Amino acid sequence: MFNKILIANRGEIALRIIRACKELGIATVAVYSTADKESLHVNFADEAVCIGPATSKLSYLNIPHIIAAAELTNANAIHPGYGFLSENSSFSRICQEHDIKFIGPSPESISKMGDKATAKDTMKKAGVPTIPGSDGLLTSLEQGLVLAQEIGFPIILKATAGGGGKGMKIVQHADAFAKAWDEARREAQAAFGNDGLYLEKLIEAPRHIEIQLMADQHGRVVHLSERDCSIQRRHQKLVEETPSPFITEELREQMGQAAITGAACIGYEGVGTVEFLVDKHRNFYFMEMNTRIQVEHPITEEVTGIDLIKEQIKIAAGEKIANKNYYPQGDAIECRINAEDPFKDFRPSPGTITNLHLPGGLGIRVDTHIYSGYTIPPHYDSMIAKLIARGKDREEAIVRMKRALEEFVIEGIKTTIPFHLQLMDDKNFRAGKFTTAFLESFKLLDIAIEDKEE
Amino acid sequence: MFNKILIANRGEIALRIIRACKELGIATVAVYSTADKESLHVNFADEAVCIGPATSKLSYLNIPHIIAAAELTNANAIHPGYGFLSENSSFSRICQEHDIKFIGPSPESISKMGDKATAKDTMKKAGVPTIPGSDGLLTSLEQGLVLAQEIGFPIILKATAGGGGKGMKIVQHADAFAKAWDEARREAQAAFGNDGLYLEKLIEAPRHIEIQLMADQHGRVVHLSERDCSIQRRHQKLVEETPSPFITEELREQMGQAAITGAACIGYEGVGTVEFLVDKHRNFYFMEMNTRIQVEHPITEEVTGIDLIKEQIKIAAGEKIANKNYYPQGDAIECRINAEDPFKDFRPSPGTITNLHLPGGLGIRVDTHIYSGYTIPPHYDSMIAKLIARGKDREEAIVRMKRALEEFVIEGIKTTIPFHLQLMDDKNFRAGKFTTAFLESFKLLDIAIEDKEE
Repeated sequence: MFNKILIANRGEIALRIIRACKELGIATVAVYSTADKESLHVNFADEAVCIGPATSKLSYLNIPHIIAAAELTNANAIHPGYGFLSENSSFSRICQEHDIKFIGPSPESISKMGDKATAKDTMKKAGVPTIPGSDGLLTSLEQGLVLAQEIGFPIILKATAGGGGKGMKIVQHADAFAKAWDEARREAQAAFGNDGLYLEKLIEAPRHIEIQLMADQHGRVVHLSERDCSIQRRHQKLVEETPSPFITEELREQMGQAAITGAACIGYEGVGTVEFLVDKHRNFYFMEMNTRIQVEHPITEEVTGIDLIKEQIKIAAGEKIANKNYYPQGDAIECRINAEDPFKDFRPSPGTITNLHLPGGLGIRVDTHIYSGYTIPPHYDSMIAKLIARGKDREEAIVRMKRALEEFVIEGIKTTIPFHLQLMDDKNFRAGKFTTAFLESFKLLDIAIEDKEE
Repeated sequence: MFNKILIANRGEIALRIIRACKELGIATVAVYSTADKESLHVNFADEAVCIGPATSKLSYLNIPHIIAAAELTNANAIHPGYGFLSENSSFSRICQEHDIKFIGPSPESISKMGDKATAKDTMKKAGVPTIPGSDGLLTSLEQGLVLAQEIGFPIILKATAGGGGKGMKIVQHADAFAKAWDEARREAQAAFGNDGLYLEKLIEAPRHIEIQLMADQHGRVVHLSERDCSIQRRHQKLVEETPSPFITEELREQMGQAAITGAACIGYEGVGTVEFLVDKHRNFYFMEMNTRIQVEHPITEEVTGIDLIKEQIKIAAGEKIANKNYYPQGDAIECRINAEDPFKDFRPSPGTITNLHLPGGLGIRVDTHIYSGYTIPPHYDSMIAKLIARGKDREEAIVRMKRALEEFVIEGIKTTIPFHLQLMDDKNFRAGKFTTAFLESFKLLDIAIEDKEE
């Protein structure tokens, strides 16, 4: 086992990793930017090294400084957390070269999953379902139509140079293909000066459902069931839950096995997550693989009893994992508490927390680095806390979450708590009826918590 | 289900009950003494009624005021918590008479278990093992000796008027009986002016192990396994854990069934706990029954997934419980954080909390009513927080507890945190080797946390 681990991250995840190290009896080194001098992770670690100014590029992304900090403190492993350098294959390689264990997969695995096209191709070859499509530019209307008929309508035409919906056309029937083709090309040409198109099967009413994996250095890969992360705002997850209210036991096993197959075929090591889109017919398609711990990992921990960070460290140290998959016992939900004003289009709201009261009691877990008097620096991600509720079933987890949200007091800044409170009361959310498009039509009532309490 | 519940208690348990009510959608009424005006339970409840001055007798034990508060607010049930009026059969009866549901057993059940002699007798008749003894005064040395030989040595002679160890003699062999008899009588006469003696089997190396029960109004009684509460100081529990590191699966089932039998024979309703002493040979003996929720109930919740307060409320409302016993999944430990100075013989240390930081993260639960700036009134129990750690096994629960104790910051007063920190490192505690006498020989090193951190 490692004697000392350097945590190349900040905020709640740095704290999360320090906690796991403490429980394993491993010494810890925090690194921090000048903006994070007063951060709790600096305080909680056994040692702390300043690695640069506030700008991430000069501190949390500064590989030479981080390696130097590890060498300076004799840390024999680095945990990258999520974000920052966690999916940087060069960093993984440089750690290797410096004889420091990177707690995560090999540079090769990171690279293979880091490039979307390569990842899709790799998974397809391994037999994991991927979104059917042209896998490249269409050469003519006729070729496109033939392919669309093979795949089955509805399909979506996309501009190869595209983004923001320009040159994107949903086609429901073969009859409408020619018209859509012309329109999409025209739009793409106008918007990007490039009329190249490709097509993909349209995933109807998609849900974002991901499988948590653990893979050891001895070739064993197991899954820990799924997380449903369909509640997203502009592709940013806001609420995650496990089990998904949508999937069946059979589908869980199919997706779990597909994820295992995908990870096994690249010789994956560590914890990781395979993200899928699941359509309304419960077909699932590989989207991408995250080769690191994820923000939402605690909900899996709550329902499986597995400490994923400890497992990650033990795997990196060469330990074997048990030969079994893990299934949810009860239900867990996570709300991401961001320093954002939900009534002003989720605009970031950094500042000083003048008063803080954390919720507690049965089934409530808070992972956070904030404290009363803490000033949230404007330089980093706006997530300031993860509130996790578990219950014997989904209903209990939801009412418990609501109760905890009501107890949560954060004064001095705006947070997403009022959004989550209203979401927990939403009829469709309560019924488990939602897709990734859910928040587009979700109407946030402009009632601040303060007003409600009066 | 009830519309509104009045909570006839204060502190963390009042908060615990309010949380359960919120999750069940039930309105809450807090009652408080003038000393508790700034208490969190007052703040968290939907309504609050002041019921008297600081002295418990005039407020939290003031039955007419509490009944009046319930009537005033149209509460249709009263939850008594633990302590105060929770095992007062008159209060249970008066609630009945006022058509307010007392959330707990009938006045008859409370009475039967409230008197130690009646309780022992009742259990003995039901076939529950009780401590063998003379069940009353011994009339002569000869009668005592015959009985001692029947029961088997070692036995203990006790003064009927006794207390504090006076007139108490452990007798290991028949040969020593006559001498001990004379000495005990002499001591008892000198100390209490009454030389009456009785005898009991000596429970060697006793552990305090209790069984949690749930019993509904429809005659169903189930158990939720045991809690080991052997870590006590002057009969005050300080640390509790489940499962007990001492008992076997077979013994768990025997004790569980004995507790069910005992509760069933008095037509028990609600949640309750049967306390046993278990000797070194793993024989168990009924000690007493607590006809209320206990302080240490959270550890059972953590390993069974059952919300005992919700179940208690649902049972009181007439709901049926599931027909199964519950067994621990993983391990949970509770440390009672008291406002006491462990380095000064656990002397109470009330005062104002100038800075507070609660521990968090995976497997950690804090049940507390304190906050930064809160002044602990000197009038009540010194327990200010319950810190609960759960893990996949005992080892993980202990290291997690230690990690959380290290994170816990309470400034302005003295607390039992340094005691718990040292206990978690104790070799015998870690090995699960302890009896109720453990703390008598436990040496607390006089190193304050502050010193250690420097």
